[in-house]
Amino acid sequence: MKIAVLGTGMVGRAITDRLSTLGHDVVIGTRDVEQTLARTEPDWLGNVPFAQWQQSHPAVRLVPFADAGVHGQVVVNATQGASSLAAIEATGAANLAGKVLLDTALPLDLSQGMPPTLTVANTDSLGEQIQRAVPEARVVKSLNTMLADVMVNPGHVPGRHNVFVAGDDADAKKTVTSLLREIGWPDDAILDLGGIRGARATEMYSSLLFTTSAALGTFDFNVAIVRK
Amino acid sequence: MKIAVLGTGMVGRAITDRLSTLGHDVVIGTRDVEQTLARTEPDWLGNVPFAQWQQSHPAVRLVPFADAGVHGQVVVNATQGASSLAAIEATGAANLAGKVLLDTALPLDLSQGMPPTLTVANTDSLGEQIQRAVPEARVVKSLNTMLADVMVNPGHVPGRHNVFVAGDDADAKKTVTSLLREIGWPDDAILDLGGIRGARATEMYSSLLFTTSAALGTFDFNVAIVRK
Repeated sequence: MKIAVLGTGMVGRAITDRLSTLGHDVVIGTRDVEQTLARTEPDWLGNVPFAQWQQSHPAVRLVPFADAGVHGQVVVNATQGASSLAAIEATGAANLAGKVLLDTALPLDLSQGMPPTLTVANTDSLGEQIQRAVPEARVVKSLNTMLADVMVNPGHVPGRHNVFVAGDDADAKKTVTSLLREIGWPDDAILDLGGIRGARATEMYSSLLFTTSAALGTFDFNVAIVRK
Repeated sequence: MKIAVLGTGMVGRAITDRLSTLGHDVVIGTRDVEQTLARTEPDWLGNVPFAQWQQSHPAVRLVPFADAGVHGQVVVNATQGASSLAAIEATGAANLAGKVLLDTALPLDLSQGMPPTLTVANTDSLGEQIQRAVPEARVVKSLNTMLADVMVNPGHVPGRHNVFVAGDDADAKKTVTSLLREIGWPDDAILDLGGIRGARATEMYSSLLFTTSAALGTFDFNVAIVRK
């Protein structure tokens, strides 16, 4: 499948690596290709510069957001939440019309340090903002409740734990669920939260994600819903 | 131990029942004793009127909030979040000074139906508001991430799942942890999130709690943090 991943950071790289390894035709979209390739320093999380990462992923093309929008049958938003709406706008509503837009971003406000607060919460969410910004796209919120290592390799954490999907379009959720299965998520680990409003729930969970991470000193965990 | 439970609803009754069964000397505090006893209709959740409940719990005295504050060595806030600050004020800062105040409430705004939003979130929490309102009390947020049946009977949901504690006073957290163990929470299921700011994390998780409940059609589940 032709897939476009928006965002060159840790999450974008992890998803691109995994989906291209599975045989998908993946491009990565960025705001400014030259600027992204010109970086020579690790980012704030210690990830190597993109140009260095790309050397080990020669099949993956880096393209402007709009070109990524043209390429992808499925478009994955893996940008930082604070940049997501601008990235979606640059990708283009016309390019996204009718397509599945898998939104993995968290609207983190890191200006006051860790743990972060959210730029939108409680009565709205980034997922809903994105759906309103591109009403003809079929937005599915998923994967935003864990470290990138767990997103693309559920076995990174042993045992049964969950990934959530939320979106208004049932067929779009089927497409995302199918991709999640390909990645390695067991069918009964994928929990459908209903419409895109469910993005509030998983984005707000990030407060517990970061607070738990600080308490445990690691992000090597995931959340599970344990049923009676 | 002398324990005061504030709130005559589902959570207050469940905690009172469990702690008195364990041998503690428990009173329930309410705003207006006569009014509480005068109710003859089930509440909005279908719980029987308090007077009927009390017939099966003759050892439990119903007292005004202030009297409950005098009685309790540990005070449990089990009021609805929207009423919690008023209940704490009525209980009295002097009565609460130095005491452990276990806050189990969620600041739910149910005015727009289900799932609820929160009256405070993201950059503040009910737990922090309560700690600021009674700075001499030692507030511990806990048990607010699950149905009352699970709070007082972890075995209601099989397998390993978690309960969180957050509070600024380490000794107060030890007291609460000890009560949780008595209730039946295994030691390694009790996850310490650090200071009272962690109340944000567990209160915001309630969005996922209610959204998951709507998706599954039940509250008979609990959250687990699954580690690598």
